[in-house]
Amino acid sequence: MRRAIELAARGLGSTSPNPVVGCVITDARGAVVGEGWHQRAGGPHAEVHALRAAGTAARGGTAYVTLEPCNHTGRTGPCAQALIEAGVTRVVYAVSDPNPQASGGGATLRAAGIATEAGLLEQEAEEGNAAWLTSVRRGRPHVLWKYAATLDGRIAAADGTSRWISSPESRADVHRLRAEADAVVVGSGTLHADDPHLAVRGRPGTDPADQPLRVVLDTRATVRPGARVLDDAAPTLIVVAEDADTGHLPGVDLVRLPADENGISVHALLAELHRRGVRSVLLEGGPTLAGAFVAAGAVDKVVGYLAPVLLGAGRTALGDAGIDTIADALRLRITETVRIGPDLRVTAVPEAVPTAPKEH
Amino acid sequence: MRRAIELAARGLGSTSPNPVVGCVITDARGAVVGEGWHQRAGGPHAEVHALRAAGTAARGGTAYVTLEPCNHTGRTGPCAQALIEAGVTRVVYAVSDPNPQASGGGATLRAAGIATEAGLLEQEAEEGNAAWLTSVRRGRPHVLWKYAATLDGRIAAADGTSRWISSPESRADVHRLRAEADAVVVGSGTLHADDPHLAVRGRPGTDPADQPLRVVLDTRATVRPGARVLDDAAPTLIVVAEDADTGHLPGVDLVRLPADENGISVHALLAELHRRGVRSVLLEGGPTLAGAFVAAGAVDKVVGYLAPVLLGAGRTALGDAGIDTIADALRLRITETVRIGPDLRVTAVPEAVPTAPKEH
Repeated sequence: MRRAIELAARGLGSTSPNPVVGCVITDARGAVVGEGWHQRAGGPHAEVHALRAAGTAARGGTAYVTLEPCNHTGRTGPCAQALIEAGVTRVVYAVSDPNPQASGGGATLRAAGIATEAGLLEQEAEEGNAAWLTSVRRGRPHVLWKYAATLDGRIAAADGTSRWISSPESRADVHRLRAEADAVVVGSGTLHADDPHLAVRGRPGTDPADQPLRVVLDTRATVRPGARVLDDAAPTLIVVAEDADTGHLPGVDLVRLPADENGISVHALLAELHRRGVRSVLLEGGPTLAGAFVAAGAVDKVVGYLAPVLLGAGRTALGDAGIDTIADALRLRITETVRIGPDLRVTAVPEAVPTAPKEH
Repeated sequence: MRRAIELAARGLGSTSPNPVVGCVITDARGAVVGEGWHQRAGGPHAEVHALRAAGTAARGGTAYVTLEPCNHTGRTGPCAQALIEAGVTRVVYAVSDPNPQASGGGATLRAAGIATEAGLLEQEAEEGNAAWLTSVRRGRPHVLWKYAATLDGRIAAADGTSRWISSPESRADVHRLRAEADAVVVGSGTLHADDPHLAVRGRPGTDPADQPLRVVLDTRATVRPGARVLDDAAPTLIVVAEDADTGHLPGVDLVRLPADENGISVHALLAELHRRGVRSVLLEGGPTLAGAFVAAGAVDKVVGYLAPVLLGAGRTALGDAGIDTIADALRLRITETVRIGPDLRVTAVPEAVPTAPKEH
């Protein structure tokens, strides 16, 4: 199953809106005879790849799958049926399918006399599929907030200078996060301060179709037609308030959403992105945008690149999140710490993911 | 030598103003026959302890010492002579003694026909003796700045509440840092906000003589006679400006130092503490005091306890340090990261220790 989880991870960034799935088939004696992973939305599922590789050796064997095999006919046939026809006699899966359209694969297998086991390495498999599982369970994309700051929490010096707080190694790592995300989100503050490009660079084999959607929250439609984010390296969506004047932006993909004095509604944004098939969002905006997402209870994972630098002044990584007192702090659990060049990358997740937005 | 460095570390917190030193003696065939470490200022040096343990087995053997053996007669006799008399034929030491009063031990040994080697595991041994080496080389105590903050760099929420940002495990670890320091320094801001006690607690065998000196920078002498820091659990020094009114503090150990609009001069403070035999300072004050030390180029090591918490508002860990632009940032090198309970402890040292205070 650990191998199947590794295989699944190869699909990160190209299977959305589908989950990543890995599958390993062993023959009747326990030898590996086929491997596969879901490579691309619309393409064959992991089980189909693995069964093709195994051929007749699958007969009497076992399938290890990271997610309960699907039971419905979408763009491809149901995997449960494919496993039955291949003569597999046992199916072990890590995570049960929470998708009401696809579940029931386990029951179909059992009805056909195939032994099933669920829950093997469930937590690891869940983490690998966090984006998709979040989107199914919560009806909105998984949100990863990424920031780069000094040890004392600053993202820029007092005079606004910030290049480079984090190292080249950390910046390359951010391109990996972008490549794994369906959409990258910034606010108009970051847009005007940095004129960011937001496309994935420096990774082999990234064609425009694999680029994440670039999303700019731009309440008053202040983006200039020549902004780098509007080039054709990747698709771009400009999100404006319902009453924004957008006459200067012909041909730009625009969406109008409800906004209040704090800007575009985070919940409306995430609902719109979900509707467009976005299952994972990399939040790369500045402190204001991050604060709005934290206040909305809409941060599922935090990745901080901490540079061994002290400033003592300048903007902080996280802006107002509606938290006034320590009892209301957002408490996380550190899941990983890794040195990235001279920097430290800290990954954390909320201690208990709220099931509804916080009431503030 | 690695064993000698381990032995040396047992003396941390009780040998000041002397260095920590460890020694291992092997006999002529290379078997360990004696170990020792410098346990307490005024007590026997590491070599003497180890030679006593080895007895006649030291004859023809090798001594591994973390610091060049001393050559002078202070409260104890010169170790170089003791090694010669014991019949040791080879001495390997990690760090040459930079103290003009004590150096020359290597030369004395060589003049007596003993083979010497210097530099084995030098960097590790230097790190173990950082406080003492800093004090000898720079003429001031080694300064370790400790802070506890959220992942976004806050030490308190917007309303000032901060208990508890860091975990019980991190707070226990701070008591270890205190136990290893000669003095603990806070400012009057921390004094009035927290009424801290600052003594070492929760560590077996800590008697008042082993407690660090509690130092309060209190320019205007605002400390109240009933403050916890003035109890008799440990010695306390209140540092005030030359013109401060101290009539309400009879019997309190006070020192008057130059101050300007930013408070007591950091350099004058460190010179005074050095004069009193303090070789290592744990800086536990708030953001203002830490900023003054960073601005003075007087931070030799940083230990940050990062709690997996987000606040988005509230005081930051480091206040104004006279750094306006990114090019002037204090750049560090991370030397260690360790999980302490749910928190992350990050240790870092300046990339290049300045040899003079920064000109601002």
